[in-house]
Amino acid sequence: MAYVLQVDFPMDGPFGEEMTESFAGLAASINEEDGFIWKIWTEDSQEKLAGGIYLFETKETAQKYLEMHSERLIDFGFETVNAKIFAVNEGLSKITHGPLK
Amino acid sequence: MAYVLQVDFPMDGPFGEEMTESFAGLAASINEEDGFIWKIWTEDSQEKLAGGIYLFETKETAQKYLEMHSERLIDFGFETVNAKIFAVNEGLSKITHGPLK
Repeated sequence: MAYVLQVDFPMDGPFGEEMTESFAGLAASINEEDGFIWKIWTEDSQEKLAGGIYLFETKETAQKYLEMHSERLIDFGFETVNAKIFAVNEGLSKITHGPLK
Repeated sequence: MAYVLQVDFPMDGPFGEEMTESFAGLAASINEEDGFIWKIWTEDSQEKLAGGIYLFETKETAQKYLEMHSERLIDFGFETVNAKIFAVNEGLSKITHGPLK
């Protein structure tokens, strides 16, 4: 069963295309993480928040990634990281075209 | 540009297959909402939380849906609804295979 990890944290920038350029290398590395399926990168330039919605193959791989990523964000200087891990309800997600692969 | 809406709220149940059966009709109706692209249904039976990750075509349609859905959840008896709307960083999401359609 797939698991969703949702993360967001305060960030002063960059946003938009500058954010894309700044984090392209990091993004490519995330594809190599154990159990990783996909990530949508999220941003709110007005509220100064950045984050992501991730899909992982298992709860354990989502938790392991979150531990590593939280430490990395703290190393980068981000002090507050909001994160939640959820199981996916596959039957309902199929009805609403939720992409689980 | 697509927008992500993330929602979660305390719920005593049902979870799993019972949740699927209980909300299948509601799920089908969500497909008809203005600007709706997809929803992944999320649940945590231990923490007693339910929610969803939605993708909408615009910020306005995400906001409009959230207003309607929050009122509906309150009508259902759910008092606390956590929700955030984010812009999608398309360039980074493409690198990490984020599904934007």
